Amino acid sequence: MLASLAKLGFHWSGRIPAVVPESCLLIMVGLLVGGVIYGVRHAAPPVLSADAFFLYLLPPIVLDAGYFLPGRLFFENLGTILWYAVLGTLWNVLGIGASLYGVCRLGPWGLGEVSLLHCLLFGSLIAAVDPVAVLSVFEKIHVNEQLHILVFGESLLNDAVTVVLYKLFESFLQMPSVSGLDVLAGGCQFVVVGLGGLCVGLFFGMVAALTTRFTARAQVIAPLFVFLYSYLSYLTSEMLHLSGIMAIVTCAVSMKQYVEANVSQESNTTIKYFLKMWSSVSETLIFIFLGVSTIQDVHMWSWPFVSATLFLCLFWRALGVLLLTAVMNKLRRNPVTFRDQFIIAYGGLRGAICFSLVFLIDDFPKKRLFITTTIVVILFTVFVQGMTIKPLVELLEVKRRKRAPTTVSEEIHSRLLDHLLSGIEDIVGYWGQHYWKDK
Amino acid sequence: MLASLAKLGFHWSGRIPAVVPESCLLIMVGLLVGGVIYGVRHAAPPVLSADAFFLYLLPPIVLDAGYFLPGRLFFENLGTILWYAVLGTLWNVLGIGASLYGVCRLGPWGLGEVSLLHCLLFGSLIAAVDPVAVLSVFEKIHVNEQLHILVFGESLLNDAVTVVLYKLFESFLQMPSVSGLDVLAGGCQFVVVGLGGLCVGLFFGMVAALTTRFTARAQVIAPLFVFLYSYLSYLTSEMLHLSGIMAIVTCAVSMKQYVEANVSQESNTTIKYFLKMWSSVSETLIFIFLGVSTIQDVHMWSWPFVSATLFLCLFWRALGVLLLTAVMNKLRRNPVTFRDQFIIAYGGLRGAICFSLVFLIDDFPKKRLFITTTIVVILFTVFVQGMTIKPLVELLEVKRRKRAPTTVSEEIHSRLLDHLLSGIEDIVGYWGQHYWKDK
Repeated sequence: MLASLAKLGFHWSGRIPAVVPESCLLIMVGLLVGGVIYGVRHAAPPVLSADAFFLYLLPPIVLDAGYFLPGRLFFENLGTILWYAVLGTLWNVLGIGASLYGVCRLGPWGLGEVSLLHCLLFGSLIAAVDPVAVLSVFEKIHVNEQLHILVFGESLLNDAVTVVLYKLFESFLQMPSVSGLDVLAGGCQFVVVGLGGLCVGLFFGMVAALTTRFTARAQVIAPLFVFLYSYLSYLTSEMLHLSGIMAIVTCAVSMKQYVEANVSQESNTTIKYFLKMWSSVSETLIFIFLGVSTIQDVHMWSWPFVSATLFLCLFWRALGVLLLTAVMNKLRRNPVTFRDQFIIAYGGLRGAICFSLVFLIDDFPKKRLFITTTIVVILFTVFVQGMTIKPLVELLEVKRRKRAPTTVSEEIHSRLLDHLLSGIEDIVGYWGQHYWKDK
Repeated sequence: MLASLAKLGFHWSGRIPAVVPESCLLIMVGLLVGGVIYGVRHAAPPVLSADAFFLYLLPPIVLDAGYFLPGRLFFENLGTILWYAVLGTLWNVLGIGASLYGVCRLGPWGLGEVSLLHCLLFGSLIAAVDPVAVLSVFEKIHVNEQLHILVFGESLLNDAVTVVLYKLFESFLQMPSVSGLDVLAGGCQFVVVGLGGLCVGLFFGMVAALTTRFTARAQVIAPLFVFLYSYLSYLTSEMLHLSGIMAIVTCAVSMKQYVEANVSQESNTTIKYFLKMWSSVSETLIFIFLGVSTIQDVHMWSWPFVSATLFLCLFWRALGVLLLTAVMNKLRRNPVTFRDQFIIAYGGLRGAICFSLVFLIDDFPKKRLFITTTIVVILFTVFVQGMTIKPLVELLEVKRRKRAPTTVSEEIHSRLLDHLLSGIEDIVGYWGQHYWKDK
């Protein structure tokens, strides 16, 4: 209730949301609430538990994102998105982890006890670009659709990679020694976790699509199946240690076309607006809790570690985007421009996923330093990057989204071309992009 | 998920729901599930806890009922509804309680230890007509609007009376002796509990109406306020030991006009369909749990007690309706016909409210008998009365609902008459029904 009223307040004022992203305002409300609780109780306010976050707050947001994913755009750019999400994330994790280890070892700042594995573990969580933070900032700045889907798609799909790496390094930490075979097995896990989530999502998506065929006489409970099956796909996937985010996104994408055709207009509106409402509430709660949880007794500060992490996050991401795009542009028909690359690198906002993961680390002497650093990185990316990205987009004259809706003629022609191309591919006997899209 | 799929199954078959009410089918599914659990675990399946029922399952149903209450019809018949709900319920409770005490005392069936207060306590819960059961049966039989609102309105408003009586007798049971003053204080409680709930509901309804005025720029969270404020009114009211049902109904009724005018068309659709979905899910769960909870180890059977209770419930209700209507008809312009009276008496279905209350009784030797009897009464009313009421309505040729929507001319004329009558009342200086409706 408090969060919703706060949100209402911002929007009513009209001028503030134009400058400061809502996420920043909500974090500030959270800081305020946390401060009040701390002042009154003389104890740290409750922290957003990882369970509450992963089981209750994250799924609605990802479901909403998946259900309203611009399918055409997403699949046309799937190659590039995967390129960034898999290779880019690996690059960031290894780069940040290794250089942080170097920083800890080199200087006289008493961080010598932090092992390489701890640094890599920290790297894997701090490299996780957060879909919630990205969505909340990019929704307002209206960059062109392709740039938007690249940043947002990466933030959705890198979950599989970061979670696998995080669990991998965590299990390595508990082993007495790590052999080459363990590393290889870890590498295979990517494929299992990612594709496994995909399969679970596809299965539940198809079952949901089938179920909604039979709701004609019980229209009132039709939307329920959309929510139930997609949540079930998430839970099943998490239970099997697969990527829940991949599962729920796949489930939503695969059921959407069928559900929309099967259920009534009113049910469609209910699904659409309820999803929007639900994800908006979850997002609000996440940012408020981020603020509240910042007020803590557990902080441990180290200038070199914190500033090195901040710098390395920016540095490795920028370098990674530059290198990966240089390779990728050779294969793309419409290359990603330099300005777009800058926004991709700069738009790598961190959020509640890192925050929840850092609390899950097994206790070791420097865990408190990791927590503090994570909070600083999140606040820096959300506040500084989130607030300056809009002026930067304007300054760089990044291509914006077209406002005009597609004309009937445009739609007919693009449909015709789609069918034509998939027909040609069929005749030629080549199962390419258009064949699969048609399928 | 199971419940929703079961529901889908009934409706798909098409012919079963025309004969058997959905509530019966759901109870049967519950019995089946309970039987399977019992067979597999060799222990009683989980019982629907009173907390889960009163805090999670009941509010959505009552909110839905309140939000879609036909306001005009309800307020035109408010006098008669209150007459039935307050005097009728008192009559039933005292009648059933006293005669059951007689039955226990008279016969050689070893029930002598059941005190008068215990009988009255049992009477207060077994007399509670259940809005959920009434709604689920009457929605399908399409009797005329006036008869519908009389039965349904009574089932909604008798909550305040039964809960007060229940708590009163419960506190009397714990006192060493009961003085005349205690009885008087108990009498005053009605007014406090009923009017208190009304005030709480009105307060939150007004706050909600005001809040939705400011949602123009945050349309997406507008429906949330409807749910939050009405639930808050329910919780606040229950916390203060007032009637939560009164509060949430009042809240919904008082906010509805304003909310509908304040929020967008899509938000209205979302509110409407989400409420319908939510209450339908709650109702389904309640009936399934009723079935599941019937499979128990705690049953205690006594032919005389069970059959006496069943007979007395029917007898006192029928007598009460006859007597009360005879008095009321002198004051009404369009009297309640004899056929309508029969349906009112016959439509007094019991449901999950009795069931939850009976488990809350403090342990005493014959509590298990009370539980068994309550379940029998619920199953009898839902199955036998619920299934025969439709043929009876047809046999008695009870006036049905008009199917045609109101014409524009009808609407204009009824509006004109409303304004005219309230104008006349204003000039005459008499604050009557029309003045208040206009207000």
